[in-house]
Amino acid sequence: MNGFDKKFKEYIDYTEKCLEEYNFLTAETQPQKNLIDAMNYSLSAGGKRIRPVLVMAFCEAMGTDYRKAKAPACAIEMIHTFSLIHDDLPAMDDDDLRRGKPSCHKAYGEAMAILAGDALSVLPFEIIADDTELTPEQKIKIISVLAKATGKSGMIGGQVIDIENESRNDVDERNLCNMYRNKTGQLIAVSCVMGCICAGVDEETIKISAEYGYKLGLAFQIIDDILDVTASTEEIGKPAGSDMEENKTTFVTLYGVEKSREIADRITAEALECLGKTGNNSFLIKLTENLLQRKN
Amino acid sequence: MNGFDKKFKEYIDYTEKCLEEYNFLTAETQPQKNLIDAMNYSLSAGGKRIRPVLVMAFCEAMGTDYRKAKAPACAIEMIHTFSLIHDDLPAMDDDDLRRGKPSCHKAYGEAMAILAGDALSVLPFEIIADDTELTPEQKIKIISVLAKATGKSGMIGGQVIDIENESRNDVDERNLCNMYRNKTGQLIAVSCVMGCICAGVDEETIKISAEYGYKLGLAFQIIDDILDVTASTEEIGKPAGSDMEENKTTFVTLYGVEKSREIADRITAEALECLGKTGNNSFLIKLTENLLQRKN
Repeated sequence: MNGFDKKFKEYIDYTEKCLEEYNFLTAETQPQKNLIDAMNYSLSAGGKRIRPVLVMAFCEAMGTDYRKAKAPACAIEMIHTFSLIHDDLPAMDDDDLRRGKPSCHKAYGEAMAILAGDALSVLPFEIIADDTELTPEQKIKIISVLAKATGKSGMIGGQVIDIENESRNDVDERNLCNMYRNKTGQLIAVSCVMGCICAGVDEETIKISAEYGYKLGLAFQIIDDILDVTASTEEIGKPAGSDMEENKTTFVTLYGVEKSREIADRITAEALECLGKTGNNSFLIKLTENLLQRKN
Repeated sequence: MNGFDKKFKEYIDYTEKCLEEYNFLTAETQPQKNLIDAMNYSLSAGGKRIRPVLVMAFCEAMGTDYRKAKAPACAIEMIHTFSLIHDDLPAMDDDDLRRGKPSCHKAYGEAMAILAGDALSVLPFEIIADDTELTPEQKIKIISVLAKATGKSGMIGGQVIDIENESRNDVDERNLCNMYRNKTGQLIAVSCVMGCICAGVDEETIKISAEYGYKLGLAFQIIDDILDVTASTEEIGKPAGSDMEENKTTFVTLYGVEKSREIADRITAEALECLGKTGNNSFLIKLTENLLQRKN
């Protein structure tokens, strides 16, 4: 295993361990066993853990032990998981599969999936508030940026634009980029920002790190659009070609596969440029390159 | 208008004003207009505002200007509203009416109602983190107790017990009280607790205030059970007799109307006893008495 893979595994293993600690079943929560099972089912469904890795990698790149970022790292994965559970609901995207497994409402029923998502939307704020590593000032700053990146002007706002675009036939690149920026970019950007806050760096570095996150998120999303038409259902763990089927506007419908790949390359280069302005980041450079070349 | 009514109106008016300020439409959030409309539709649907009134009244009873409790007062009303929106969804209680008006998903569609609830579950943490009145330590403490009272071991956990009780025919008083304690008691208790934290009182007073809140919440819930069979649809703003129709176990099905009224009276007396041990609370005593005698 090379240095990058070893470090990546170290971050992932630590995330898995902490996520389990934050949401285990106690005697007191026994009556809520099904809820906690449903939350853990989706939390452990084998996601890529990109967001917690970014939190920890930014914290470490800025010279601080990555374990200090335990709470925001797990918090962002919970927020991401909550959004996936609600996104898959029949009234939303109506997806039966998520990461190759039945989606939460298929496994636990719709009511329990709604409540599991709800519980995963507030637990992040509890674990940050109760954390023993961070100062009160760091916690407040983290809670503020995390809530904003999640809420009406963040990820949830992006989902609203996404849903409303379905009934529009005039979606252009500007609208699409704004939707992606909110729907996926904000959680990725805030991951980088929270890592920086844990390390106590200056505002200018936080700003560049956020910019990196937005660019990475957009490149990531364009690659998703490409994979939807080029990869198999098995490879991406959800029905391939579903964007096409739903008549969604994506980078591929706007520009085709080849041009979309070029745009993703250009934005990734810009992201790498941002990284050049921050701390010790060989891990982050490699991570960025890997994400661009992913096949699923 | 007597002193109590005047003070009550003062609290309510201040809550309404602040809620509007926290969730107005900006140029930036224009693409999310429908989301913000849906949030405001449910936030302004004419609830009794018991929870924010408790936050402010406890803050003031402990000798601090109630306006200092602005953020937690609005936060608790947002959490309460988020739970009502999701509770009414077809996959949950499937209620078309809420407070005499179409429920959120009837007015804005199911997807938007899910997202409006989601946005109202994170906005509370943003407004507390960004508040300018409270110290970082007060904010952290408030966020911690609020998230716990809302989450898997709080209100959401109580909803899980409620749902699972529907398929059980052995629900006894212990189970029912545990469900009510979580589903409604915790948000009411935490309202009192947050008011205390804003005023900076000692742990013992916080504990008694929480106990008062749990008792008030239980009495409130038993009265709900009674009103479901004794009041008209028009009076309570939702279909009367819906508990009976759904074959739910309630205090009325366990003990009948008369005995339930006696139990509510006894618990209210205990709540008033708790109040006797705290600060200057003539407003809170009157509020407690009014809630017990309510007809809707």
